[in-house]
Amino acid sequence: MKALSDEEARALLSHCGMGRLGCVVDGEPYVVPINYVFDGGSIYSHSLPGRKIEVLRAHRRACLQVDRIKSDFDWRSVIAYGDFEEIHAPNDRRSILGKLLARFPLLTPVESVTVSDAEPTSIVFRIRVDRITGVGEG
Amino acid sequence: MKALSDEEARALLSHCGMGRLGCVVDGEPYVVPINYVFDGGSIYSHSLPGRKIEVLRAHRRACLQVDRIKSDFDWRSVIAYGDFEEIHAPNDRRSILGKLLARFPLLTPVESVTVSDAEPTSIVFRIRVDRITGVGEG
Repeated sequence: MKALSDEEARALLSHCGMGRLGCVVDGEPYVVPINYVFDGGSIYSHSLPGRKIEVLRAHRRACLQVDRIKSDFDWRSVIAYGDFEEIHAPNDRRSILGKLLARFPLLTPVESVTVSDAEPTSIVFRIRVDRITGVGEG
Repeated sequence: MKALSDEEARALLSHCGMGRLGCVVDGEPYVVPINYVFDGGSIYSHSLPGRKIEVLRAHRRACLQVDRIKSDFDWRSVIAYGDFEEIHAPNDRRSILGKLLARFPLLTPVESVTVSDAEPTSIVFRIRVDRITGVGEG
């Protein structure tokens, strides 16, 4: 097992599009799969109101773990750490939802409408990444 | 999105064999992929000494997240929560490594040797599960 270079770690983070968001609630870990886009500085995603958003609002520190596992001897795993921030400005919401929609065309109609109407039906957020680590084999 | 029944959640946990272990270190989440077996009560796995084990020793509360994602509209995700415990008794270590080896035949030769010799080259541990939640669509 070896550490990935910062460039290798960032490349995997840009490539994946789906990862596991790690949060902390009352000292207990909470992990859920999310779709996201990474622009080199932040991880952007969106969610309907629910447990994930409640947890992140209560404890902003989060991480996103992504991996590419070809076999037990050929794999990479990266963790990006950062603070949760909600995006409220309509223009920013529209821009981010547009990027998510471009990457994930199967977003629900409600969310497609949101891109044009900027209705706050879903929460748009970012994890402002301040540390990236990665390890791998093969 | 709907909650899974306890039976559905346990079935996914038994089926997967690979999941993301969530831990907490200094108030920050830490997430890594692991192979495991689940016997209905505990999640068993093993690891060489390293960051994951240090983190779990310092803060025993952990979770394992597993999922089966067929599409954005057909997916399940389960989280099993519990406390980390190291397994020290040679007979127990041998038995658990045997189950892991049966499920994951590509475990390294070092670990295969460990099954017969019970040398403490790797750490054998369990997460004693006390809560399981699951959600899904489709």
